[in-house]
Amino acid sequence: MLERDKTILIVGLGLLGGKYAQVLSGKGYTVWGIDSDPGTVRWALDRAYISRGSDQPDRDLVEHADRIIFGLYPTVLLDWVKQYGSWMRPGTLVTDVSGVKRGVVAPVQQMLPRGVEFIASHPMAGRETSGITHSAEVDFAPANFIVTPTEHNTPEAIAWCRDLARTLGFARITTLSVAEHDRMIGYVSQLCHAIAVSLMCASDNSSLADYTGDSFRDLTRIARINEKLWAELFLWNRDNLIGEIDMFDAALLKLRECLASGDRAGLEAMFRLSTARRAAFDDKEKTPAAPDIPAKPES
Amino acid sequence: MLERDKTILIVGLGLLGGKYAQVLSGKGYTVWGIDSDPGTVRWALDRAYISRGSDQPDRDLVEHADRIIFGLYPTVLLDWVKQYGSWMRPGTLVTDVSGVKRGVVAPVQQMLPRGVEFIASHPMAGRETSGITHSAEVDFAPANFIVTPTEHNTPEAIAWCRDLARTLGFARITTLSVAEHDRMIGYVSQLCHAIAVSLMCASDNSSLADYTGDSFRDLTRIARINEKLWAELFLWNRDNLIGEIDMFDAALLKLRECLASGDRAGLEAMFRLSTARRAAFDDKEKTPAAPDIPAKPES
Repeated sequence: MLERDKTILIVGLGLLGGKYAQVLSGKGYTVWGIDSDPGTVRWALDRAYISRGSDQPDRDLVEHADRIIFGLYPTVLLDWVKQYGSWMRPGTLVTDVSGVKRGVVAPVQQMLPRGVEFIASHPMAGRETSGITHSAEVDFAPANFIVTPTEHNTPEAIAWCRDLARTLGFARITTLSVAEHDRMIGYVSQLCHAIAVSLMCASDNSSLADYTGDSFRDLTRIARINEKLWAELFLWNRDNLIGEIDMFDAALLKLRECLASGDRAGLEAMFRLSTARRAAFDDKEKTPAAPDIPAKPES
Repeated sequence: MLERDKTILIVGLGLLGGKYAQVLSGKGYTVWGIDSDPGTVRWALDRAYISRGSDQPDRDLVEHADRIIFGLYPTVLLDWVKQYGSWMRPGTLVTDVSGVKRGVVAPVQQMLPRGVEFIASHPMAGRETSGITHSAEVDFAPANFIVTPTEHNTPEAIAWCRDLARTLGFARITTLSVAEHDRMIGYVSQLCHAIAVSLMCASDNSSLADYTGDSFRDLTRIARINEKLWAELFLWNRDNLIGEIDMFDAALLKLRECLASGDRAGLEAMFRLSTARRAAFDDKEKTPAAPDIPAKPES
């Protein structure tokens, strides 16, 4: 578990940053917070999510924090580190919550002062809501936490990041390289959101809601989306996402071609493949996962 | 409610036909059954889903039934009516459970003897399983039931079909024309299944199951599919489904174009539209629906 004597500063008290603050304070850790919105800081102080807070980039808080967690959008995170990263003192360990990694990790590691270590991570626990007032609805218990170390990271920092995830209560903690993470997230998360959004945008479906079965409801649940955040995530991972869209589109057009040519056998073959893959997926899900997968050596 | 003195024959005791038999027998109606699989007929007799049954097209059962419900795939249904429809006696009311209507309704109405009336309907309560042994898992309580009359149908037959749905316990009973039904089903059901299947077929995703969040799980739940049935449903409605795929694909490619050109405003506009439409959908779902929408006059 995390060391009790270290002070944790959370920069960006949004949905996830706010939830981190709530859980860590609830477990007795010293948590401070910075957020540009004064109402958010007040909200967090009033509920004792944080014991000190500021709506400014507060040098005193940054200098005296032992651990810093960024709950900011990627672009804002990069800008913040560029402007105020020099305030962090050597020995500080830093992580984030970003849903994309390639554009974030190397630049942040380069910008931070010598002796300050950034170990990136991604708590896969987003929701369609945003802001600290919705933090209480976030549930880490069934969620994955992914640590994405680079060759610049020390075993100690990686261990701290995994301890953080364990303390926060994540179901599974895994390690991926930065590139593997972004490829994976392009498929299991971003492609799914691109599909749901496209399905919703394809036609005005309001008159059809009366007839909707579970299929449409399930496919479009994630079409409610925070547009600023998701535009960020998509654009930071655009090469991967475009590749995934193209692979998906090829499969869809193959199905369309089977329809157009009346190729019953071709359709049935696709249905058998999808059924087998989804059945394997269900079986895998039923197998209780190891709660904490040991870190594999990073290349 | 349905008249107590009428004998109901169910031809095709699959997932839905079996469930119809279970519910109707459970409510005290006289239910007979025909299924080409002897094991299925025995299973239904053993559990008193039916009081008489045959694994042959049994002329005696057909002649003496007052109401006939077809639980067959469209192609099998057409073939059955062609071969044995002449056995039905005038006054018999007939319905089905088919998920597509255009290719079924007019031919069946034309083939049936004078005085036998086919009033088509679609219980939207399919599952990823099939066969009578899974019937008990089917739940009509939250499901839609759609009656699709034509100009050949009488108010009495339409009323009977709605009574049937009410007796079976469907949440909502609505009326659509045959063409409207197939257009609607092409979008809310078939396009969603085409997307889920394509997503599953697009790449071998088995190694990614470890990292999957709810998005991928929700989008691919319906990728487990009965390939024979769904090839039928897709091919009988191929023009509508191809049209829906093309509309969806245009939206997806627009999103891809925003990514490729780095058009943040374009992405955000799509996200806002999808969020607004899905929010409207959620609001509509929260409004308690009228349990039984009066039939509108058919054109």
